Amino acid sequence: MFRANEIKALLFDTFGTVVDWRSSLIDAFSHYGQSRQLDADWSQLVDQWRSAYWPSMDNVRKRKLAWTTLDELHRAALVKLLPAFKLEQLAADDIDDLTAFWHRLKPWPDVRPGLARLKNHFLIGPLSNGNFSLMVELNKFAGLGWDFIFGADIFRHYKPDPETYLEACSLLGLRPAQAMMVAAHNYDLHAAQSFGIHTAFIPRPVEYGPSQTKDLRPEGPWDIVADDLEDLARQLIEDRPR
Amino acid sequence: MFRANEIKALLFDTFGTVVDWRSSLIDAFSHYGQSRQLDADWSQLVDQWRSAYWPSMDNVRKRKLAWTTLDELHRAALVKLLPAFKLEQLAADDIDDLTAFWHRLKPWPDVRPGLARLKNHFLIGPLSNGNFSLMVELNKFAGLGWDFIFGADIFRHYKPDPETYLEACSLLGLRPAQAMMVAAHNYDLHAAQSFGIHTAFIPRPVEYGPSQTKDLRPEGPWDIVADDLEDLARQLIEDRPR
Repeated sequence: MFRANEIKALLFDTFGTVVDWRSSLIDAFSHYGQSRQLDADWSQLVDQWRSAYWPSMDNVRKRKLAWTTLDELHRAALVKLLPAFKLEQLAADDIDDLTAFWHRLKPWPDVRPGLARLKNHFLIGPLSNGNFSLMVELNKFAGLGWDFIFGADIFRHYKPDPETYLEACSLLGLRPAQAMMVAAHNYDLHAAQSFGIHTAFIPRPVEYGPSQTKDLRPEGPWDIVADDLEDLARQLIEDRPR
Repeated sequence: MFRANEIKALLFDTFGTVVDWRSSLIDAFSHYGQSRQLDADWSQLVDQWRSAYWPSMDNVRKRKLAWTTLDELHRAALVKLLPAFKLEQLAADDIDDLTAFWHRLKPWPDVRPGLARLKNHFLIGPLSNGNFSLMVELNKFAGLGWDFIFGADIFRHYKPDPETYLEACSLLGLRPAQAMMVAAHNYDLHAAQSFGIHTAFIPRPVEYGPSQTKDLRPEGPWDIVADDLEDLARQLIEDRPR
């Protein structure tokens, strides 16, 4: 049974749930291209870059690859993509700069007001596959105001490995039932729920662009389905028994 | 050579450097005593409680004791002290409540304005022997506004073990020379400096009460000695080459 009063901490998936990585990256590449007189299909590049995410992370999860941070996975994936976009002339420093675009992503419009309100009632922080330094810089850039920050390199595991969810609760000194995972992705909530963590689904129907087909709807018995983080705050705070 | 421009993150010792644990705990015990009609020499109790800190942490550092968090060490030390203060009748829940006094300590008066200013120029966060959940609650209670939070249970090591300083830098994605340790305790700065981290000493001459004899003065070639965190901000920001 769901009791909002029991919840002490909200754990947020970040890429897609909190920040609009796709349009932020396309913007960043477009500006970069203009300043360097480079042209390419930046949307394609960004979409293909993100597509490399699952397979490369899976290699780490299956121990085919030693522990590697998301920044490192991003960089390696980008290097592979560059020739197809005729950008193979970029120097190592340039590639570092492009990889760091992931540290400066814009939050969806509801995020800052929603988090500000939730923060008065709960501990809030990310539980993301990003590495710690990426999450720290993103927090500062996007003004998220997290109470705490986890990075996958603290656990040396990627979601949906159990270690991420369970060690996060343990470090917070909480039982899983005292935490709620907030995500735009059903797989993440499936995993969290299987460990006894509460769940809130926030659809982000254009995260992957206008033709997104995945995660448009809740696909499990989630405790809360909310339109966005402001709606989540309303549901968690106003509907809370006193 | 010390170059302020190189520094990206400030790591703060917390108990003593940032928060005035002694007078906060004495106040908390006095209020608790009044509300329960209990009387004891609360200053004595607090001083003896803090004295138990080094030996119990040392048992963990020397692997005589398996990994144990500071909250757990605090609780066990308090249980041992209670009979001498005629408080052995306290229930387990009461002892939990008293242990949690360490989560609600007041910052020194210069801390909030000093950190607010430093935060505009650096990433700021604690590198303390407190456990993660303690540091998260203390941050929220004291309004410190940390950009990131470390807890000793992330490293499963206590300062001055090298793992704490070096893994903190590594998680932040920084070389040691890009970080500065800020502490009221010379031992902490000695360790940090030996790993290549910059150092700032902030004396807190009444941390241990009016008859403190230790850490009244800098005892090493620290990069900065500042009166308090506002003075540290002045020295780091205004004296910075542009």
